[in-house]
Amino acid sequence: MISVVIIGNGNVATHLVTAFLKVDTIKLTQINSRKLNNIPTADVTIIAVSDDAIAEVSSKIKNSFVVHTSGSFPLENLKNKTNKGVFYMLQTFSKDKPVNFNEVPFCLEATNKTDYILLEKLANLIGKKIYNINSEQRKTLHVAAVFVNNFTNHLYKIGNDICKENNVPFEILQPLIDETSQKIKTLSPDKAQTGPAIRNDKKTIKNHLDLLNNEQQKIYKMITKSIRKSNKQA
Amino acid sequence: MISVVIIGNGNVATHLVTAFLKVDTIKLTQINSRKLNNIPTADVTIIAVSDDAIAEVSSKIKNSFVVHTSGSFPLENLKNKTNKGVFYMLQTFSKDKPVNFNEVPFCLEATNKTDYILLEKLANLIGKKIYNINSEQRKTLHVAAVFVNNFTNHLYKIGNDICKENNVPFEILQPLIDETSQKIKTLSPDKAQTGPAIRNDKKTIKNHLDLLNNEQQKIYKMITKSIRKSNKQA
Repeated sequence: MISVVIIGNGNVATHLVTAFLKVDTIKLTQINSRKLNNIPTADVTIIAVSDDAIAEVSSKIKNSFVVHTSGSFPLENLKNKTNKGVFYMLQTFSKDKPVNFNEVPFCLEATNKTDYILLEKLANLIGKKIYNINSEQRKTLHVAAVFVNNFTNHLYKIGNDICKENNVPFEILQPLIDETSQKIKTLSPDKAQTGPAIRNDKKTIKNHLDLLNNEQQKIYKMITKSIRKSNKQA
Repeated sequence: MISVVIIGNGNVATHLVTAFLKVDTIKLTQINSRKLNNIPTADVTIIAVSDDAIAEVSSKIKNSFVVHTSGSFPLENLKNKTNKGVFYMLQTFSKDKPVNFNEVPFCLEATNKTDYILLEKLANLIGKKIYNINSEQRKTLHVAAVFVNNFTNHLYKIGNDICKENNVPFEILQPLIDETSQKIKTLSPDKAQTGPAIRNDKKTIKNHLDLLNNEQQKIYKMITKSIRKSNKQA
C-alpha cells in the first residue's frame, strides 16, 4: 500500500486523482491548496498547483517526501525541509478529455534512490512509460514541448484560419496532420521534410505568400527561411 | 471497367499505381513522362509529374480526359485540347511507406459533370474521403497544408535538435505530439491552445529563451507573439 496526498484541483490533479482511485494499493487523499492546515501524513505528497504557487505550498508541508508535477520548476526550489522529488507528466491535459496514462511519459526525479524507487513504483501503478529525468533535462523537454505542442497547435490554428477565410472545411487536412505526426516515428524530422521550402520552389512560395495576410506571411517567411537554412547545414 | 493511364514515376505515381493495380475493374497503363509518343487511349489520363512539367506533358496528350495530381497547379493551365480535371490527393507520400488510401482525401475537379462523376467513381474504387474542390479552394488547402505539414514538421525538427543538444531522447515527446494532433479532432485549435504564450507567463518564456540558440529564439519569439495576438483578437 502506498499512501498519497495530492494538493491541488486543476487539470493535472484531477486526472491524477482519477487514475490513482482506480488502483487498490493506493490510499489517496486530495487536498485543496488553500486548506493546508490539515494534511495527513503520506508516503508521497504531490503538489499539483500552478508554478507560481509551488514554493509557498511546499514551505507549509512537513510530510517526509514532497514532489511537484511541473515541467519547468527546479527540484531544489521546493521549500519543504524534508525529501524532494519531481513527478512530471509530459502530456497535455484537457479538462473534459479522459487521459490514457499508458501514453503518458512520467519524468521522475528524486534526491535519493529510495525515494526514486517509490516514485517509479507509483508511476508504474498507473502508467508504463517511465523516465529518470533530472531538472536540467526536464527544462530541455519543457521548451521542446512548447515547440511540438503549443507552437504546432498555433500552426494548426493558422491552417484553420486560412480554411475558414476561404470556405474550405479544415477537416480535409486532418489525415495530413495525422500522417505528419506519425511519420517521425520511423523517419527523423529532418529526413521527413517535404514541400516548397526544402525544394526551394520560389514560384510556389510566391503564390502562397500572395494568399496570406501580413501576420501569416511573416510566419511563412521566417519558417521557410529556417527550413532553407537547416537544409544547407545538413 | 475504367481504363486509366498514369504518366510519371515519382512518389504519387508509384503509390497510385500500387492502389489501382489492386482493383479488378481498372485497366491500368503507366507511362514514363519522357516517352510520350505512344500513349494508349484511356477513360482517364492522369499526369503525376512535378508542377513544372505538367503544362508541357499535357500539351502532348490527345486523350479525351486529362487530369493532374498537383495541389497548386490550376486546372485551366493544362494544355491538352480535350477535357480537363484534377485528381489531387491531400497527403504526404513517402517513398518507402505504404499509403492507407482510406485516409487520403481526394480533392476532385472537372469542367463537366460527366467527367467529375467518372473521377469520383475512380477515387471511390481506392479510397473513401472524396471532396469536390475547385482550383481556388485547392490553392487554399495547399498553403494551409504547408503550415500543418511542412512547418509543423520543422517545429518537430527544432524540438529534436533541442533534445539532441541536451542528450534527452526525443521519443519522450512523441505521445505529446500524438495528442496535440488528435486533440483538434474534438476541440478547435484556438480552444486547444495551452502553454506559457497564451497564459502570458513571462517568467517561463524568459527561461525558455535562455535555453535556445539565436535561430530558435527568433522562431520562439515570433510564434509566441502571434499566439498572444490571436488570443487578444478572440
